[in-house]
Amino acid sequence: MRSGLSAMADTGWPGCARSLKGVILDLCGVLYDSGEGDGVAIRGSIEAVRRLKESDLQLRFCTNETQATREKFVAKLQRLGFDICVSEVFPPAPAAVAVLKERGLRPHLLVHDGLLPEFDSVDKTSPNCVIVGDAAENFSYQNLNEAFRVLIGLEKPVLFSLGQGRYYKETDGLKLDVGVYMKALEYACDLKAEVIGKPSPTFFQTVLNDMGLQPHEALMIGDDLLNDVGGAQHCGMRGVQVRTGKYRPSDEKHPTVTADGTVDDLAQAVELILNQRRN
Amino acid sequence: MRSGLSAMADTGWPGCARSLKGVILDLCGVLYDSGEGDGVAIRGSIEAVRRLKESDLQLRFCTNETQATREKFVAKLQRLGFDICVSEVFPPAPAAVAVLKERGLRPHLLVHDGLLPEFDSVDKTSPNCVIVGDAAENFSYQNLNEAFRVLIGLEKPVLFSLGQGRYYKETDGLKLDVGVYMKALEYACDLKAEVIGKPSPTFFQTVLNDMGLQPHEALMIGDDLLNDVGGAQHCGMRGVQVRTGKYRPSDEKHPTVTADGTVDDLAQAVELILNQRRN
Repeated sequence: MRSGLSAMADTGWPGCARSLKGVILDLCGVLYDSGEGDGVAIRGSIEAVRRLKESDLQLRFCTNETQATREKFVAKLQRLGFDICVSEVFPPAPAAVAVLKERGLRPHLLVHDGLLPEFDSVDKTSPNCVIVGDAAENFSYQNLNEAFRVLIGLEKPVLFSLGQGRYYKETDGLKLDVGVYMKALEYACDLKAEVIGKPSPTFFQTVLNDMGLQPHEALMIGDDLLNDVGGAQHCGMRGVQVRTGKYRPSDEKHPTVTADGTVDDLAQAVELILNQRRN
Repeated sequence: MRSGLSAMADTGWPGCARSLKGVILDLCGVLYDSGEGDGVAIRGSIEAVRRLKESDLQLRFCTNETQATREKFVAKLQRLGFDICVSEVFPPAPAAVAVLKERGLRPHLLVHDGLLPEFDSVDKTSPNCVIVGDAAENFSYQNLNEAFRVLIGLEKPVLFSLGQGRYYKETDGLKLDVGVYMKALEYACDLKAEVIGKPSPTFFQTVLNDMGLQPHEALMIGDDLLNDVGGAQHCGMRGVQVRTGKYRPSDEKHPTVTADGTVDDLAQAVELILNQRRN
Protein backbone atom coordinates (compact mmCIF):
# COMPACT_ATOMS: atom_id res chain seq x y z
CA MET A 1 0.00 0.00 0.00
CA ARG A 2 1.28 3.47 -0.86
CA SER A 3 2.09 5.89 1.94
CA GLY A 4 0.48 9.35 1.99
CA LEU A 5 3.85 10.80 1.03
CA SER A 6 4.24 8.78 -2.14
CA ALA A 7 0.63 9.52 -3.13
CA MET A 8 1.49 13.19 -2.87
CA ALA A 9 4.67 12.65 -4.88
CA ASP A 10 2.48 11.13 -7.64
CA THR A 11 0.92 14.50 -8.27
CA GLY A 12 4.23 16.19 -9.12
CA TRP A 13 6.96 15.57 -11.66
CA PRO A 14 8.34 12.97 -12.14
CA GLY A 15 6.00 11.12 -9.70
CA CYS A 16 3.03 11.77 -11.96
CA ALA A 17 4.63 9.51 -14.58
CA ARG A 18 3.37 6.48 -12.62
CA SER A 19 -0.25 7.18 -13.57
CA LEU A 20 0.34 8.32 -17.16
CA LYS A 21 -1.25 6.56 -20.10
CA GLY A 22 0.16 8.65 -22.92
CA VAL A 23 2.94 11.04 -23.89
CA ILE A 24 2.78 13.77 -26.54
CA LEU A 25 6.06 15.05 -27.95
CA ASP A 26 6.81 18.26 -29.75
CA LEU A 27 9.20 17.63 -32.65
CA CYS A 28 11.48 20.55 -33.59
CA GLY A 29 13.75 21.39 -30.66
CA VAL A 30 12.87 18.15 -28.86
CA LEU A 31 13.69 15.38 -31.36
CA TYR A 32 15.87 17.45 -33.71
CA ASP A 33 17.13 20.92 -34.57
CA SER A 34 16.09 22.08 -38.02
CA GLY A 35 18.57 23.66 -40.42
CA GLU A 36 20.44 22.88 -43.63
CA GLY A 37 19.15 19.70 -45.26
CA ASP A 38 17.27 17.54 -42.75
CA GLY A 39 18.73 19.26 -39.68
CA VAL A 40 20.29 17.14 -36.90
CA ALA A 41 18.83 14.77 -34.32
CA ILE A 42 19.27 15.94 -30.71
CA ARG A 43 21.60 13.63 -28.78
CA GLY A 44 19.78 10.67 -27.25
CA SER A 45 16.41 11.49 -28.77
CA ILE A 46 16.28 8.67 -31.33
CA GLU A 47 16.85 6.14 -28.55
CA ALA A 48 14.39 7.98 -26.27
CA VAL A 49 11.58 7.71 -28.85
CA ARG A 50 12.39 4.01 -29.29
CA ARG A 51 12.18 3.45 -25.51
CA LEU A 52 8.79 5.19 -25.28
CA LYS A 53 7.47 3.10 -28.16
CA GLU A 54 8.59 -0.07 -26.42
CA SER A 55 6.85 0.99 -23.19
CA ASP A 56 3.15 0.61 -22.39
CA LEU A 57 2.59 4.34 -22.96
CA GLN A 58 0.74 5.68 -25.97
CA LEU A 59 2.83 8.08 -28.03
CA ARG A 60 1.83 10.91 -30.36
CA PHE A 61 3.68 13.83 -31.93
CA CYS A 62 2.11 17.28 -31.88
CA THR A 63 3.89 19.92 -33.94
CA ASN A 64 3.35 23.39 -35.34
CA GLU A 65 5.62 22.49 -38.26
CA THR A 66 4.23 24.04 -41.45
CA GLN A 67 7.17 24.08 -43.86
CA ALA A 68 6.34 20.75 -45.49
CA THR A 69 3.48 18.31 -45.98
CA ARG A 70 3.04 15.79 -43.21
CA GLU A 71 4.34 13.02 -45.48
CA LYS A 72 7.56 14.84 -46.42
CA PHE A 73 8.11 15.96 -42.87
CA VAL A 74 7.77 12.45 -41.47
CA ALA A 75 10.07 11.10 -44.21
CA LYS A 76 12.71 13.58 -43.04
CA LEU A 77 12.39 12.38 -39.45
CA GLN A 78 12.70 8.80 -40.63
CA ARG A 79 15.91 9.69 -42.52
CA LEU A 80 17.24 11.20 -39.30
CA GLY A 81 16.70 7.78 -37.69
CA PHE A 82 13.38 8.19 -35.86
CA ASP A 83 10.84 5.38 -35.71
CA ILE A 84 7.79 7.47 -36.53
CA CYS A 85 4.84 7.23 -38.92
CA VAL A 86 2.44 9.70 -40.52
CA SER A 87 -0.64 8.71 -38.50
CA GLU A 88 1.14 9.51 -35.22
CA VAL A 89 1.94 13.10 -36.24
CA PHE A 90 -0.48 16.04 -35.76
CA PRO A 91 0.46 19.28 -37.57
CA PRO A 92 -1.80 22.34 -38.12
CA ALA A 93 -2.34 22.18 -41.91
CA PRO A 94 -4.69 19.18 -42.04
CA ALA A 95 -6.65 20.72 -39.14
CA ALA A 96 -6.86 23.99 -41.10
CA VAL A 97 -8.17 22.20 -44.20
CA ALA A 98 -10.93 20.67 -42.07
CA VAL A 99 -11.90 24.11 -40.69
CA LEU A 100 -11.96 25.66 -44.19
CA LYS A 101 -14.26 22.96 -45.53
CA GLU A 102 -16.53 23.12 -42.47
CA ARG A 103 -16.97 26.89 -42.79
CA GLY A 104 -16.94 27.12 -46.60
CA LEU A 105 -13.91 29.44 -46.65
CA ARG A 106 -11.51 29.98 -49.56
CA PRO A 107 -8.00 30.88 -48.40
CA HIS A 108 -5.28 33.15 -49.66
CA LEU A 109 -2.17 31.24 -48.55
CA LEU A 110 0.92 32.90 -47.08
CA VAL A 111 2.81 29.69 -46.37
CA HIS A 112 5.99 27.84 -47.24
CA ASP A 113 6.08 26.41 -50.77
CA GLY A 114 6.55 22.98 -49.22
CA LEU A 115 3.16 23.18 -47.51
CA LEU A 116 1.10 24.06 -50.61
CA PRO A 117 0.20 20.45 -51.54
CA GLU A 118 -1.71 20.11 -48.21
CA PHE A 119 -4.20 22.61 -49.67
CA ASP A 120 -4.54 20.97 -53.11
CA SER A 121 -8.13 19.92 -52.40
CA VAL A 122 -9.20 23.41 -51.26
CA ASP A 123 -10.92 26.05 -53.45
CA LYS A 124 -8.66 29.09 -53.46
CA THR A 125 -10.53 31.30 -55.95
CA SER A 126 -11.79 34.74 -54.75
CA PRO A 127 -10.27 34.27 -51.31
CA ASN A 128 -12.41 35.23 -48.30
CA CYS A 129 -9.80 34.51 -45.63
CA VAL A 130 -6.02 34.39 -45.19
CA ILE A 131 -3.94 31.54 -43.79
CA VAL A 132 -0.48 32.36 -42.53
CA GLY A 133 2.04 29.60 -41.75
CA ASP A 134 5.77 29.60 -41.15
CA ALA A 135 6.52 30.89 -44.64
CA ALA A 136 10.18 31.69 -43.84
CA GLU A 137 11.82 33.22 -46.94
CA ASN A 138 8.33 33.67 -48.43
CA PHE A 139 7.77 36.36 -45.77
CA SER A 140 8.85 39.06 -48.21
CA TYR A 141 7.46 42.60 -48.03
CA GLN A 142 5.58 41.93 -51.24
CA ASN A 143 3.96 38.72 -50.00
CA LEU A 144 2.97 40.23 -46.66
CA ASN A 145 1.44 43.18 -48.55
CA GLU A 146 -0.55 40.79 -50.74
CA ALA A 147 -2.00 38.99 -47.72
CA PHE A 148 -2.75 42.35 -46.10
CA ARG A 149 -4.59 43.61 -49.16
CA VAL A 150 -6.78 40.51 -49.27
CA LEU A 151 -7.71 40.99 -45.60
CA ILE A 152 -8.29 44.74 -45.74
CA GLY A 153 -10.50 44.26 -48.79
CA LEU A 154 -12.87 41.85 -47.00
CA GLU A 155 -15.98 43.06 -45.24
CA LYS A 156 -15.35 40.60 -42.41
CA PRO A 157 -11.63 39.76 -42.57
CA VAL A 158 -10.72 36.29 -41.24
CA LEU A 159 -7.10 35.41 -40.50
CA PHE A 160 -5.97 31.92 -39.51
CA SER A 161 -2.49 31.41 -38.11
CA LEU A 162 -0.89 27.97 -38.10
CA GLY A 163 0.59 28.34 -34.62
CA GLN A 164 1.67 31.51 -32.87
CA GLY A 165 5.33 30.79 -32.07
CA ARG A 166 7.72 33.72 -31.67
CA TYR A 167 10.87 32.03 -32.93
CA TYR A 168 12.57 28.67 -33.27
CA LYS A 169 16.11 27.44 -33.39
CA GLU A 170 17.81 26.26 -36.54
CA THR A 171 21.35 24.94 -36.63
CA ASP A 172 22.57 28.42 -37.66
CA GLY A 173 20.61 30.38 -35.05
CA LEU A 174 17.18 31.61 -33.97
CA LYS A 175 14.59 32.31 -36.67
CA LEU A 176 11.34 34.24 -36.55
CA ASP A 177 8.23 32.07 -36.45
CA VAL A 178 4.70 32.50 -37.77
CA GLY A 179 3.37 34.27 -34.65
CA VAL A 180 5.46 37.33 -35.46
CA TYR A 181 3.77 37.71 -38.85
CA MET A 182 0.38 36.88 -37.36
CA LYS A 183 0.86 39.84 -34.99
CA ALA A 184 1.97 42.01 -37.91
CA LEU A 185 -1.22 41.27 -39.87
CA GLU A 186 -3.38 41.57 -36.75
CA TYR A 187 -2.05 45.08 -36.18
CA ALA A 188 -2.26 46.08 -39.85
CA CYS A 189 -5.93 45.06 -40.08
CA ASP A 190 -6.97 45.66 -36.46
CA LEU A 191 -8.25 42.10 -36.01
CA LYS A 192 -7.56 38.99 -33.95
CA ALA A 193 -6.31 35.84 -35.70
CA GLU A 194 -7.72 32.39 -35.05
CA VAL A 195 -4.83 30.09 -34.13
CA ILE A 196 -4.89 26.56 -35.54
CA GLY A 197 -2.18 24.46 -33.88
CA LYS A 198 -0.60 24.68 -30.45
CA PRO A 199 -1.60 26.23 -28.01
CA SER A 200 -5.21 25.98 -29.26
CA PRO A 201 -7.14 23.68 -26.89
CA THR A 202 -9.09 22.29 -29.86
CA PHE A 203 -5.82 21.15 -31.40
CA PHE A 204 -4.54 19.37 -28.26
CA GLN A 205 -7.97 17.79 -27.82
CA THR A 206 -7.74 16.22 -31.29
CA VAL A 207 -4.58 14.42 -30.19
CA LEU A 208 -6.11 13.30 -26.87
CA ASN A 209 -9.18 12.02 -28.72
CA ASP A 210 -6.95 10.00 -31.05
CA MET A 211 -5.39 8.30 -28.00
CA GLY A 212 -8.77 7.96 -26.25
CA LEU A 213 -7.32 9.64 -23.14
CA GLN A 214 -8.41 12.24 -20.62
CA PRO A 215 -6.10 15.26 -20.24
CA HIS A 216 -4.82 14.21 -16.80
CA GLU A 217 -3.67 10.90 -18.27
CA ALA A 218 -1.29 12.59 -20.73
CA LEU A 219 1.98 14.48 -20.57
CA MET A 220 3.27 16.99 -23.14
CA ILE A 221 7.03 17.42 -23.60
CA GLY A 222 8.24 20.44 -25.55
CA ASP A 223 10.87 23.16 -25.82
CA ASP A 224 8.33 26.01 -26.08
CA LEU A 225 7.22 27.12 -22.63
CA LEU A 226 4.12 29.00 -23.77
CA ASN A 227 2.82 26.92 -26.66
CA ASP A 228 3.82 23.40 -25.59
CA VAL A 229 3.89 23.53 -21.78
CA GLY A 230 1.42 26.35 -21.13
CA GLY A 231 -0.93 25.16 -23.87
CA ALA A 232 -0.99 21.59 -22.54
CA GLN A 233 -1.48 22.75 -18.94
CA HIS A 234 -4.36 24.95 -20.07
CA CYS A 235 -6.04 21.75 -21.33
CA GLY A 236 -5.49 19.89 -18.07
CA MET A 237 -2.38 17.97 -19.12
CA ARG A 238 1.03 18.02 -17.49
CA GLY A 239 3.71 19.94 -19.35
CA VAL A 240 7.46 19.35 -19.14
CA GLN A 241 10.05 21.57 -20.82
CA VAL A 242 13.35 20.36 -22.27
CA ARG A 243 16.47 22.52 -22.14
CA THR A 244 17.05 22.00 -25.89
CA GLY A 245 15.76 23.84 -28.99
CA LYS A 246 14.44 27.31 -28.23
CA TYR A 247 14.67 26.86 -24.44
CA ARG A 248 16.14 29.89 -22.68
CA PRO A 249 17.16 30.02 -18.97
CA SER A 250 14.66 32.88 -18.42
CA ASP A 251 11.85 30.37 -19.17
CA GLU A 252 12.41 28.91 -15.70
CA LYS A 253 11.32 32.17 -14.04
CA HIS A 254 8.47 33.05 -16.40
CA PRO A 255 5.82 35.22 -14.72
CA THR A 256 2.76 33.22 -15.81
CA VAL A 257 3.77 29.72 -16.96
CA THR A 258 5.64 27.24 -14.75
CA ALA A 259 6.48 23.86 -16.24
CA ASP A 260 5.60 20.78 -14.17
CA GLY A 261 9.20 19.78 -14.71
CA THR A 262 12.28 20.91 -16.58
CA VAL A 263 14.78 18.38 -17.95
CA ASP A 264 18.04 18.63 -19.87
CA ASP A 265 16.66 16.82 -22.91
CA LEU A 266 14.16 14.23 -24.10
CA ALA A 267 16.50 11.40 -23.12
CA GLN A 268 16.47 12.56 -19.50
CA ALA A 269 12.69 13.00 -19.52
CA VAL A 270 12.16 9.47 -20.80
CA GLU A 271 14.67 8.02 -18.32
CA LEU A 272 12.80 9.70 -15.43
CA ILE A 273 9.38 8.60 -16.72
CA LEU A 274 10.35 4.98 -17.24
CA ASN A 275 12.19 4.86 -13.89
CA GLN A 276 9.06 6.01 -12.08
CA ARG A 277 6.98 3.36 -13.80
CA ARG A 278 9.43 0.58 -12.84
CA ASN A 279 9.06 1.44 -9.11
CA MET B 1 -19.26 92.03 -29.67
CA ARG B 2 -19.64 88.33 -30.38
CA SER B 3 -22.83 86.58 -29.38
CA GLY B 4 -22.71 83.54 -27.05
CA LEU B 5 -23.58 81.39 -30.04
CA SER B 6 -20.65 82.51 -32.17
CA ALA B 7 -18.27 82.15 -29.17
CA MET B 8 -19.47 78.56 -28.89
CA ALA B 9 -19.01 78.06 -32.59
CA ASP B 10 -15.38 79.15 -32.18
CA THR B 11 -14.66 76.03 -30.14
CA GLY B 12 -15.65 73.68 -32.95
CA TRP B 13 -14.54 73.11 -36.52
CA PRO B 14 -14.28 75.25 -38.63
CA GLY B 15 -15.08 78.05 -36.15
CA CYS B 16 -11.90 77.31 -34.19
CA ALA B 17 -9.91 78.50 -37.23
CA ARG B 18 -10.59 82.10 -36.18
CA SER B 19 -8.26 81.82 -33.17
CA LEU B 20 -5.56 79.67 -34.80
CA LYS B 21 -1.96 80.82 -35.01
CA GLY B 22 -0.44 77.87 -36.79
CA VAL B 23 -1.22 74.86 -38.97
CA ILE B 24 0.73 71.59 -39.13
CA LEU B 25 0.30 69.43 -42.22
CA ASP B 26 1.02 65.79 -42.71
CA LEU B 27 2.63 65.19 -46.11
CA CYS B 28 1.96 61.79 -47.68
CA GLY B 29 -1.77 61.37 -48.30
CA VAL B 30 -2.42 65.09 -47.74
CA LEU B 31 -0.11 66.89 -50.20
CA TYR B 32 0.66 63.93 -52.45
CA ASP B 33 0.27 60.19 -52.94
CA SER B 34 3.58 58.33 -53.05
CA GLY B 35 4.31 55.79 -55.75
CA GLU B 36 6.44 55.32 -58.86
CA GLY B 37 8.97 58.13 -59.23
CA ASP B 38 7.98 61.17 -57.18
CA GLY B 39 4.35 60.14 -56.80
CA VAL B 40 1.58 62.60 -57.66
CA ALA B 41 0.32 65.79 -56.01
CA ILE B 42 -3.24 65.58 -54.69
CA ARG B 43 -5.60 67.88 -56.61
CA GLY B 44 -5.63 71.40 -55.20
CA SER B 45 -2.94 70.79 -52.60
CA ILE B 46 -0.14 72.83 -54.25
CA GLU B 47 -2.43 75.88 -54.35
CA ALA B 48 -3.67 75.15 -50.79
CA VAL B 49 -0.11 75.19 -49.40
CA ARG B 50 0.57 78.46 -51.27
CA ARG B 51 -2.59 80.03 -49.79
CA LEU B 52 -1.60 79.03 -46.25
CA LYS B 53 1.88 80.47 -46.76
CA GLU B 54 0.37 83.74 -47.93
CA SER B 55 -1.87 83.92 -44.84
CA ASP B 56 -0.88 85.11 -41.36
CA LEU B 57 -0.75 81.52 -40.10
CA GLN B 58 2.49 79.78 -39.30
CA LEU B 59 2.97 76.59 -41.29
CA ARG B 60 5.00 73.45 -40.56
CA PHE B 61 5.06 69.94 -42.00
CA CYS B 62 5.14 66.96 -39.66
CA THR B 63 5.73 63.59 -41.30
CA ASN B 64 6.61 60.03 -40.43
CA GLU B 65 8.34 59.72 -43.81
CA THR B 66 11.49 57.61 -43.42
CA GLN B 67 12.30 56.43 -46.93
CA ALA B 68 14.70 59.27 -47.74
CA THR B 69 16.80 61.94 -46.08
CA ARG B 70 14.99 65.17 -45.29
CA GLU B 71 16.90 66.95 -48.08
CA LYS B 72 15.98 64.42 -50.79
CA PHE B 73 12.42 64.21 -49.57
CA VAL B 74 11.93 67.99 -49.69
CA ALA B 75 13.55 68.14 -53.14
CA LYS B 76 10.95 65.63 -54.33
CA LEU B 77 8.11 67.80 -52.98
CA GLN B 78 9.63 70.83 -54.69
CA ARG B 79 9.74 68.90 -57.99
CA LEU B 80 6.03 68.11 -57.51
CA GLY B 81 5.46 71.88 -57.31
CA PHE B 82 5.20 72.55 -53.59
CA ASP B 83 6.69 75.70 -52.05
CA ILE B 84 8.39 74.01 -49.11
CA CYS B 85 11.85 74.11 -47.52
CA VAL B 86 13.90 71.76 -45.35
CA SER B 87 13.66 73.78 -42.13
CA GLU B 88 9.83 73.59 -42.20
CA VAL B 89 9.77 69.78 -42.32
CA PHE B 90 9.92 67.54 -39.21
CA PRO B 91 10.56 63.83 -39.88
CA PRO B 92 11.53 61.17 -37.27
CA ALA B 93 15.12 60.38 -38.31
CA PRO B 94 16.80 63.59 -37.10
CA ALA B 95 14.86 63.25 -33.83
CA ALA B 96 16.12 59.66 -33.52
CA VAL B 97 19.73 60.73 -34.07
CA ALA B 98 19.34 63.23 -31.21
CA VAL B 99 17.97 60.51 -28.90
CA LEU B 100 20.81 58.11 -29.79
CA LYS B 101 23.47 60.70 -29.02
CA GLU B 102 21.77 61.77 -25.81
CA ARG B 103 21.59 58.18 -24.52
CA GLY B 104 24.89 56.93 -25.94
CA LEU B 105 23.19 54.21 -28.02
CA ARG B 106 24.62 52.50 -31.11
CA PRO B 107 21.89 51.35 -33.50
CA HIS B 108 21.39 48.39 -35.78
CA LEU B 109 19.36 49.96 -38.59
CA LEU B 110 16.41 48.27 -40.29
CA VAL B 111 15.50 51.17 -42.54
CA HIS B 112 15.16 52.15 -46.20
CA ASP B 113 18.49 52.52 -48.03
CA GLY B 114 17.51 56.12 -48.77
CA LEU B 115 17.47 56.95 -45.06
CA LEU B 116 20.95 55.65 -44.21
CA PRO B 117 22.79 58.97 -44.76
CA GLU B 118 20.77 60.52 -41.87
CA PHE B 119 22.72 58.19 -39.58
CA ASP B 120 26.18 58.86 -41.07
CA SER B 121 27.32 60.67 -37.92
CA VAL B 122 26.20 57.86 -35.59
CA ASP B 123 28.45 55.07 -34.22
CA LYS B 124 26.94 51.79 -35.38
CA THR B 125 29.60 49.34 -34.10
CA SER B 126 28.50 46.64 -31.60
CA PRO B 127 24.87 47.75 -31.71
CA ASN B 128 23.00 48.01 -28.41
CA CYS B 129 19.63 48.98 -29.86
CA VAL B 130 17.57 48.55 -33.04
CA ILE B 131 15.90 51.28 -35.09
CA VAL B 132 13.11 50.25 -37.43
CA GLY B 133 11.80 52.63 -40.09
CA ASP B 134 9.61 52.14 -43.14
CA ALA B 135 12.12 49.83 -44.79
CA ALA B 136 9.66 48.69 -47.50
CA GLU B 137 11.41 46.11 -49.74
CA ASN B 138 14.17 45.89 -47.11
CA PHE B 139 11.63 44.14 -44.84
CA SER B 140 12.82 40.73 -46.01
CA TYR B 141 12.68 37.68 -43.75
CA GLN B 142 16.47 37.76 -43.53
CA ASN B 143 16.64 41.43 -42.50
CA LEU B 144 13.88 41.07 -39.92
CA ASN B 145 15.70 38.03 -38.50
CA GLU B 146 18.92 40.05 -38.25
CA ALA B 147 17.23 42.82 -36.29
CA PHE B 148 15.54 40.21 -34.08
CA ARG B 149 18.85 38.48 -33.33
CA VAL B 150 20.45 41.78 -32.28
CA LEU B 151 17.55 42.48 -29.90
CA ILE B 152 17.28 38.98 -28.43
CA GLY B 153 21.04 39.00 -27.80
CA LEU B 154 20.92 42.17 -25.68
CA GLU B 155 20.53 42.04 -21.92
CA LYS B 156 18.20 45.04 -22.05
CA PRO B 157 16.83 45.16 -25.60
CA VAL B 158 15.86 48.64 -26.85
CA LEU B 159 13.73 49.05 -29.98
CA PHE B 160 12.97 52.42 -31.54
CA SER B 161 10.27 52.68 -34.19
CA LEU B 162 10.15 55.67 -36.53
CA GLY B 163 6.38 55.99 -36.39
CA GLN B 164 3.80 53.28 -35.79
CA GLY B 165 1.60 53.55 -38.88
CA ARG B 166 -0.30 50.48 -40.04
CA TYR B 167 -0.30 51.19 -43.77
CA TYR B 168 -0.17 53.98 -46.29
CA LYS B 169 -1.42 54.50 -49.80
CA GLU B 170 0.80 54.49 -52.84
CA THR B 171 -0.45 55.09 -56.36
CA ASP B 172 -0.67 51.31 -56.87
CA GLY B 173 -2.46 50.50 -53.59
CA LEU B 174 -2.11 50.22 -49.82
CA LYS B 175 1.32 49.27 -48.42
CA LEU B 176 2.31 48.04 -44.97
CA ASP B 177 3.96 50.66 -42.81
CA VAL B 178 6.61 50.51 -40.09
CA GLY B 179 4.16 49.91 -37.22
CA VAL B 180 3.40 46.44 -38.54
CA TYR B 181 7.07 45.44 -38.28
CA MET B 182 7.40 47.22 -34.94
CA LYS B 183 4.61 44.98 -33.61
CA ALA B 184 6.30 41.94 -35.14
CA LEU B 185 9.57 42.64 -33.30
CA GLU B 186 7.74 43.59 -30.10
CA TYR B 187 6.03 40.20 -30.10
CA ALA B 188 9.18 38.27 -31.07
CA CYS B 189 11.20 39.80 -28.22
CA ASP B 190 8.37 40.40 -25.70
CA LEU B 191 9.15 44.12 -25.41
CA LYS B 192 7.57 47.51 -26.06
CA ALA B 193 9.10 49.80 -28.70
CA GLU B 194 9.73 53.50 -28.14
CA VAL B 195 8.03 55.41 -30.94
CA ILE B 196 9.89 58.39 -32.40
CA GLY B 197 7.60 60.36 -34.70
CA LYS B 198 3.84 60.80 -34.71
CA PRO B 199 1.87 60.17 -32.46
CA SER B 200 4.60 60.70 -29.84
CA PRO B 201 3.74 63.85 -27.83
CA THR B 202 7.47 64.72 -27.65
CA PHE B 203 7.56 64.82 -31.43
CA PHE B 204 4.52 67.10 -31.82
CA GLN B 205 5.92 69.32 -29.05
CA THR B 206 9.14 69.84 -31.03
CA VAL B 207 7.08 71.29 -33.89
CA LEU B 208 5.02 73.49 -31.55
CA ASN B 209 8.23 74.76 -29.92
CA ASP B 210 9.62 75.63 -33.33
CA MET B 211 6.56 77.80 -33.98
CA GLY B 212 6.54 79.17 -30.42
CA LEU B 213 2.88 78.18 -30.03
CA GLN B 214 0.70 76.58 -27.37
CA PRO B 215 -1.15 73.41 -28.45
CA HIS B 216 -4.59 75.09 -28.53
CA GLU B 217 -3.23 77.64 -31.01
CA ALA B 218 -2.39 74.97 -33.59
CA LEU B 219 -4.30 72.65 -35.90
CA MET B 220 -3.03 69.39 -37.37
CA ILE B 221 -4.35 68.19 -40.72
CA GLY B 222 -3.68 64.60 -41.71
CA ASP B 223 -5.05 61.49 -43.42
CA ASP B 224 -4.18 59.15 -40.52
CA LEU B 225 -6.94 59.22 -37.90
CA LEU B 226 -4.89 57.68 -35.10
CA ASN B 227 -1.41 59.10 -35.64
CA ASP B 228 -2.21 62.55 -37.06
CA VAL B 229 -5.61 63.43 -35.61
CA GLY B 230 -5.56 61.37 -32.40
CA GLY B 231 -1.90 62.18 -31.72
CA ALA B 232 -2.47 65.92 -32.13
CA GLN B 233 -5.61 65.86 -29.99
CA HIS B 234 -3.70 63.98 -27.27
CA CYS B 235 -1.31 66.98 -27.16
CA GLY B 236 -4.15 69.52 -26.88
CA MET B 237 -4.24 70.51 -30.57
CA ARG B 238 -7.19 70.28 -32.91
CA GLY B 239 -7.07 67.50 -35.49
CA VAL B 240 -8.80 67.46 -38.86
CA GLN B 241 -8.86 64.48 -41.21
CA VAL B 242 -8.82 64.68 -45.00
CA ARG B 243 -10.67 62.13 -47.12
CA THR B 244 -7.55 61.52 -49.22
CA GLY B 245 -4.56 59.19 -48.77
CA LYS B 246 -5.22 56.32 -46.38
CA TYR B 247 -8.59 57.70 -45.23
CA ARG B 248 -11.30 55.07 -45.01
CA PRO B 249 -15.03 55.74 -44.43
CA SER B 250 -14.90 53.62 -41.25
CA ASP B 251 -12.57 56.27 -39.75
CA GLU B 252 -15.64 58.50 -39.29
CA LYS B 253 -17.17 56.05 -36.79
CA HIS B 254 -13.97 55.04 -34.96
CA PRO B 255 -14.65 53.89 -31.38
CA THR B 256 -12.00 56.04 -29.66
CA VAL B 257 -10.84 58.85 -31.95
CA THR B 258 -13.20 61.48 -33.41
CA ALA B 259 -11.69 64.14 -35.65
CA ASP B 260 -12.60 67.76 -34.91
CA GLY B 261 -13.53 67.95 -38.56
CA THR B 262 -13.46 65.84 -41.71
CA VAL B 263 -12.93 67.44 -45.11
CA ASP B 264 -12.71 66.15 -48.66
CA ASP B 265 -9.12 67.27 -49.12
CA LEU B 266 -6.53 69.85 -48.08
CA ALA B 267 -7.94 72.41 -50.52
CA GLN B 268 -11.33 72.26 -48.79
CA ALA B 269 -9.71 72.49 -45.32
CA VAL B 270 -7.75 75.58 -46.31
CA GLU B 271 -10.80 77.19 -47.94
CA LEU B 272 -12.81 76.69 -44.72
CA ILE B 273 -9.96 77.98 -42.50
CA LEU B 274 -9.33 81.10 -44.54
CA ASN B 275 -13.07 81.79 -44.89
CA GLN B 276 -13.47 81.73 -41.10
CA ARG B 277 -10.61 84.14 -40.67
CA ARG B 278 -12.09 86.59 -43.19
CA ASN B 279 -15.36 86.82 -41.19
